[in-house]
Amino acid sequence: MKALVLGTGLIGASLGAGLRGAGWSVTGWDPSPSAMEGALGMGGLDEAAADAVVGDDIDLVVLASPVANILAVLPALRTGALVTDVAGVKGSVVEAAAHLPRFVGGHPMAGRESSGPGAASAAMFQGATWILTSDGAAEGDLRQMEGIVESLGAVPVRMTAAAHDAAVAAVSHVPQVLASALVNLVAKDEGALALAAGGFRDVTRIALSEPGWWTDILTENRAEVSALIGALSKDLAVWADRIASGDSHSVADGLASARQARLGLTAPVATVNVLLEDHPGEIARIGQALTGVDVRDLQLRHATRGGGGVLSLSVLPGQQDGLIQALEADGFRIV
Amino acid sequence: MKALVLGTGLIGASLGAGLRGAGWSVTGWDPSPSAMEGALGMGGLDEAAADAVVGDDIDLVVLASPVANILAVLPALRTGALVTDVAGVKGSVVEAAAHLPRFVGGHPMAGRESSGPGAASAAMFQGATWILTSDGAAEGDLRQMEGIVESLGAVPVRMTAAAHDAAVAAVSHVPQVLASALVNLVAKDEGALALAAGGFRDVTRIALSEPGWWTDILTENRAEVSALIGALSKDLAVWADRIASGDSHSVADGLASARQARLGLTAPVATVNVLLEDHPGEIARIGQALTGVDVRDLQLRHATRGGGGVLSLSVLPGQQDGLIQALEADGFRIV
Repeated sequence: MKALVLGTGLIGASLGAGLRGAGWSVTGWDPSPSAMEGALGMGGLDEAAADAVVGDDIDLVVLASPVANILAVLPALRTGALVTDVAGVKGSVVEAAAHLPRFVGGHPMAGRESSGPGAASAAMFQGATWILTSDGAAEGDLRQMEGIVESLGAVPVRMTAAAHDAAVAAVSHVPQVLASALVNLVAKDEGALALAAGGFRDVTRIALSEPGWWTDILTENRAEVSALIGALSKDLAVWADRIASGDSHSVADGLASARQARLGLTAPVATVNVLLEDHPGEIARIGQALTGVDVRDLQLRHATRGGGGVLSLSVLPGQQDGLIQALEADGFRIV
Repeated sequence: MKALVLGTGLIGASLGAGLRGAGWSVTGWDPSPSAMEGALGMGGLDEAAADAVVGDDIDLVVLASPVANILAVLPALRTGALVTDVAGVKGSVVEAAAHLPRFVGGHPMAGRESSGPGAASAAMFQGATWILTSDGAAEGDLRQMEGIVESLGAVPVRMTAAAHDAAVAAVSHVPQVLASALVNLVAKDEGALALAAGGFRDVTRIALSEPGWWTDILTENRAEVSALIGALSKDLAVWADRIASGDSHSVADGLASARQARLGLTAPVATVNVLLEDHPGEIARIGQALTGVDVRDLQLRHATRGGGGVLSLSVLPGQQDGLIQALEADGFRIV
C-alpha cells in the first residue's frame, strides 16, 4: 500500500513515520526542500516526490499542509485514491473536496493544539482523539480510515463536519481567544501580572500558541467562533451586572453549575500533595516511592524563589493511602 | 510571644502550626468546636480559648475566618496588639480596621486559590506570595509582619489595599469568572464537551473551586471585578466582530501581543516530552532517570483510553540533552 503525504512539516512527517510503522510505503512532497529533507531524515518518508502529482499507484493521499493551503489545493485534485486531510476546521474542507469520489476529512487532536510545537514523531498521535468526517463518505472508506487512525495509536471519532466545527469552536477555538483576551487585559497592569499564580497561568497557558497558525483556524471557522464569542461576551456582561449589584445568589448559582459540569470532565481521582525540598533530584526520590502506583495526573507548584515546592499527585481512589505511606516511609512530608 | 488565631479552619490551623514552629505560643478560637478540635489535633494550637476575647497577654491577633465574618468582627475589636488577617480582599478589611492602632492586612496567596482544599499544614505557605497592606501601617509593624511571613516560608510583598484588590481582580477573580462562564457556555453542547482536550481542561480547571467561598470574594471585590469583566466583555465583542469579518491582521496582532505578554511569565525552560506506556509504575521508572535533574515543571497528558500518555518535563536550558540521554538509556521514547 502506497501513501502520498502532501506537506511534510510537524504533522505530515509524524504521520508519514506512523504510516511507515504500520507497513505503508510513504512518498512525500513539500514546497520547502528543507521540510522534505527533515521528514526523510527522521524516517517520515521512504522517498521524496518530484512534484505534488498523484500517481496511479497511490492508495492514500494525505493533505497535511496548513488549512489555507489545503483549501487552495483541493479544487484541482483529481484522483480515485482515498483522500484525507488533517486540518483543524472541517466544513470548508469537506465542501472543497465534494468532487472527490473517496474523501474522509480528518482532524488529529494532537500536536500543535494540545502539546505545542515539538519534534515530529510517530508517537505524536498516541492516545489522541482523531475526528473523521462522515459527510458523504462511503462506509468502507470510513472503516479504512478508522483502521489507519487506530494503527497510529489514536482514537477515531466519527462526526459531521458541521458538528466538528461547532464542537472545536467551543472547546478549542473560543478558549484560545479567551486566554489571549485575558492576557491582553491584564498585561496593562504590570503590578498585577507580577502576582499571577497557578490559576492565572493555567487559564492563559494556551495564549503561548503560535499566532499565525491560530489566525488561520479562527478565520476558517469564523461563523462558529464569532457566534460563541459573541454569546460569551453577553454572558460576561450579565456576570458583571450581577457581581456589581451584589446578586450573590445568581453568582453562586453560576459558579456551582460550572463546577458541576466541569466535574464531569474530571476522572475520579484522589490527590496527594507532597512537599519538595529545593534541591535537584527530588523528583527522582519521589519516583522511588511511586513503584506500582498508577499516577493519573501531576501538578508542580514550584516556589517563586528558594524553599522548594509542592507536587500534587492524582491517583485512583483507594490508592492514596498506600502512596502516602510509601512517601512518608521515604521521608517525604505530605501537605 | 503569644498569638490568638480567630478561625481555626484550613488557613487558621495551618498558620497556627507555622507560628508554633517559629516559636509562638498559639491560642485559637472558632465557633465550631470540631474545627477547634481539628486544629488542636494537627498541632495548630497550644490551647483552645474559651471565647474570642483578646487578653492583655496577646501580642498578635490573626483573623482567619471567611471575609464576611472578618468584616463583621472587626468593628467591635479593641486591642493594642498587632492585628492581621488572611482575607483575599483587602480594601473593605483595611477600612473596617481603621480604628485599630496596629493593623497590617495580609493575604497569603496559597491554599484554596492555588492548590485546592486539603489538610491543614504548616507547609501550606511554603514559597507562596503573601501580600501585606501598607495603608496606615507603622513601619515597625510592617517589618514585624514581614518577619512572621518569612518565618512561615512565604514571600512578603507590600502593597496598598487598593492596588491589591485591583491586581487580584485581574489575575485571580476575573479568571475564575471567565473559566466558569466558559464551562457554562460549552456545557450546553454535550458532544463538544466530550472532545475537551488539554487546552480546555487547563483553562477551566479553576472552575472546580468552591462556589460559596468564591461568591464571597467576588462580592467583596465587586467594583474591581465587575469593571474588569465588563471591559473583557467589550473586548470579546471586538474579537467576535474581527473574526466574523475575517480581519485576520487584527486577530493575528491580538494573539501575538498576548503571546508576548504571556512569555514574560514563563521561566526560561526547555521541555522534554516522554512517551509513557500504559502500566502502573511508569512514573517510578521515570524517576530513576531524573537523578540530579532539577525539574521545574511537569505536565501529564494521559490517553483518554489505553495507550499510555505523554509526560512533559521542563528543565533549565542546557539540562535537556543530559535528561534525554538518561531517559533514552533507560528505554524511554522521547516524543
